[in-house]
Amino acid sequence: MTATPGLPLRGARNPGSQGALRHLNQERLVEFLLANGPSTQAELARGTGLSTATVSNIVRDMAMKGVVATSPVTSSGRRALLVQLTDTGDIAVGVDFGRRHVRIVLCTLGYEVIAEEEVPLPLGYDVSGAVREAAELLDRMLLAGAHDRQSVLSVGVGIPGPIDRRTGTVLQGAILPEWVGVRLRDLEDVFRFPVVVDNDANLGALAEVTWGANRGVRNLIFVKIGTGIGAGLILNGQPYYGFLGITGELGHTPVTDQGVICRCGNRGCLETIASTTVMIETLGHRVNAPVSTADILQRGRDRDPAVLRVVSDAGIAIGQAIGNIANVINPELVLIGGPLVGLGDALLDPIRRGIQHNAIPVIADTTAVRISSLGDRAESLGAAALVIQGALAGNE
Amino acid sequence: MTATPGLPLRGARNPGSQGALRHLNQERLVEFLLANGPSTQAELARGTGLSTATVSNIVRDMAMKGVVATSPVTSSGRRALLVQLTDTGDIAVGVDFGRRHVRIVLCTLGYEVIAEEEVPLPLGYDVSGAVREAAELLDRMLLAGAHDRQSVLSVGVGIPGPIDRRTGTVLQGAILPEWVGVRLRDLEDVFRFPVVVDNDANLGALAEVTWGANRGVRNLIFVKIGTGIGAGLILNGQPYYGFLGITGELGHTPVTDQGVICRCGNRGCLETIASTTVMIETLGHRVNAPVSTADILQRGRDRDPAVLRVVSDAGIAIGQAIGNIANVINPELVLIGGPLVGLGDALLDPIRRGIQHNAIPVIADTTAVRISSLGDRAESLGAAALVIQGALAGNE
Repeated sequence: MTATPGLPLRGARNPGSQGALRHLNQERLVEFLLANGPSTQAELARGTGLSTATVSNIVRDMAMKGVVATSPVTSSGRRALLVQLTDTGDIAVGVDFGRRHVRIVLCTLGYEVIAEEEVPLPLGYDVSGAVREAAELLDRMLLAGAHDRQSVLSVGVGIPGPIDRRTGTVLQGAILPEWVGVRLRDLEDVFRFPVVVDNDANLGALAEVTWGANRGVRNLIFVKIGTGIGAGLILNGQPYYGFLGITGELGHTPVTDQGVICRCGNRGCLETIASTTVMIETLGHRVNAPVSTADILQRGRDRDPAVLRVVSDAGIAIGQAIGNIANVINPELVLIGGPLVGLGDALLDPIRRGIQHNAIPVIADTTAVRISSLGDRAESLGAAALVIQGALAGNE
Repeated sequence: MTATPGLPLRGARNPGSQGALRHLNQERLVEFLLANGPSTQAELARGTGLSTATVSNIVRDMAMKGVVATSPVTSSGRRALLVQLTDTGDIAVGVDFGRRHVRIVLCTLGYEVIAEEEVPLPLGYDVSGAVREAAELLDRMLLAGAHDRQSVLSVGVGIPGPIDRRTGTVLQGAILPEWVGVRLRDLEDVFRFPVVVDNDANLGALAEVTWGANRGVRNLIFVKIGTGIGAGLILNGQPYYGFLGITGELGHTPVTDQGVICRCGNRGCLETIASTTVMIETLGHRVNAPVSTADILQRGRDRDPAVLRVVSDAGIAIGQAIGNIANVINPELVLIGGPLVGLGDALLDPIRRGIQHNAIPVIADTTAVRISSLGDRAESLGAAALVIQGALAGNE
């Protein structure tokens, strides 16, 4: 299933010509670029411990040999040189299964997106049918780009639920009950590629520090607010999986003593009062007509008081749960993802108030809270990043 | 202040004769032993990626040359060979400032304790006086063992409060208000050695995975229940410090809406209902006489119902706060430390019930909860481990 040893390792160590990598320091730069995506020379120096002069010399050498490409950018208001690996022909595939869609991205080891497509899935879709549909979409995308199947390193798949890394199965608690018990080896049989899987919130967090505006942040919580409320963690610069791989279950913080029974088996969990499902249900009582997340977005932008109140109540509760966690893991940054992020400050402000309520003052004052920089692309881009990083780790 | 670059690095790379370390694999084993303390051959193989045959050969070679000593032990019911570095003459010092004591340990780079002493301090002691007293105790201990001052690598100091790693000062929120604002460079002036500092709960966690029965556990929460309630984290096998170094503030989880104002500035924090101070105060109302933690221990063992009730209420609340965190960081092990650990199951059972209440079933079922294996030695041993590991990291 997820084991990186099973990954094909072609190209991971020699993304340029082997001759170009004869020096250890070059290898360190390449490994850093593989792990972190396009980086400025200053980031390369900080990340590898090499001097800026050494980095600059090696980058010039590698650029001449075609291993990397450089482009001028602005970083923290200063001019900088962005360095990225050039194309080796190897392809990482990222697949994101949502509640009503599957999205696929193809990209290079240098974190360049080659192709990207999304197709809708019916609500409550049959999982094996959806996986077949995704495999066919991937085949069509490869064909359209004239990409050899041999060039695919492996397929990263994002699943909306907790994954037990001991057994490689989706656990009870998946947003989509159809996914429960799916063995991830089954995915390999359908895709006919090696597959790595992860939870969608974990992939969102990974995408933010590899593809997103938050590259280089070492301690980050990515909170996805949707049908469920889950968090992905980057700690000490690495995706964090804990003992069994069942991390970030923020939605199951009990918040009310006599609340309703939650799908996890506990009672009064955050999800039972603050998920988009509950918001939709609560608002539906008033209008006596089905409400969708799109309605919440639209009416929220129109400043409908009921929508703002429901979002605010949910946001405060979510913020309080985040505050408890921030007190313990002291993140630099909390990123909010999921279908409601278009609400902007109407969603962020109550979350910030909740954090302020529960976190000790120095933590509340120093923890940045922002909307995810990648929107609905985060999970699929994170799945592709998992493939790139897995290939690297498997080769060390 | 805490910067490891300031550490003297003598002896860190060549704890045996330089000739004995001519092979890279030997160096890896030595580094692993420096970082993790005495380890079985199986742990060495797992930790370095070397084959068990290679480990066994190198260990035999190093043992012949006197670099390591081996001794038979039982690990998970099987016979194993424990490997530890032999004495190089270098000394790591661990100092633990508690509420009413200072404890000092001297030990070798091979995690062997050479000397250990504790002296009482008056309640509400003057910090600069206490630091002078500790420095004099250290000088006496060095003299008594005929240890050259040159042999001291550096002094690790445990402080009962959060430390802002940006500025190297003890923050508001320290259990002992006298410590607030102490600049840790000041400690170096008094000890006349390089000093590294850390929070006491962090050091307890580090001690457990280096000296304790829990060596090799990669994801662990050490919860110290005392005048304050703080947690130290080992995540992915490393001490975890987060963005600013202010981690593990479990005692400041709000647990009651209209509670009393807490020393952190928030309201109704866990500490305001579950610290030993509050237990003592609550029990004092009944007996109309001062109660101490020693009384709580004694009466708890005698199964005094009021004491058991107070401990149980506190334990459940602490367990619930731990459960929220466990849902997010999925630890393998929760260890309980502090002055009440002598209560054993009378303390652990309510904590376990609290975790069961708040954690999702799979987390509650798989998270082990135990009493700290090191008792009141944990913090000072952790401070010494910090010195040993700092010397190693500074040399990489």
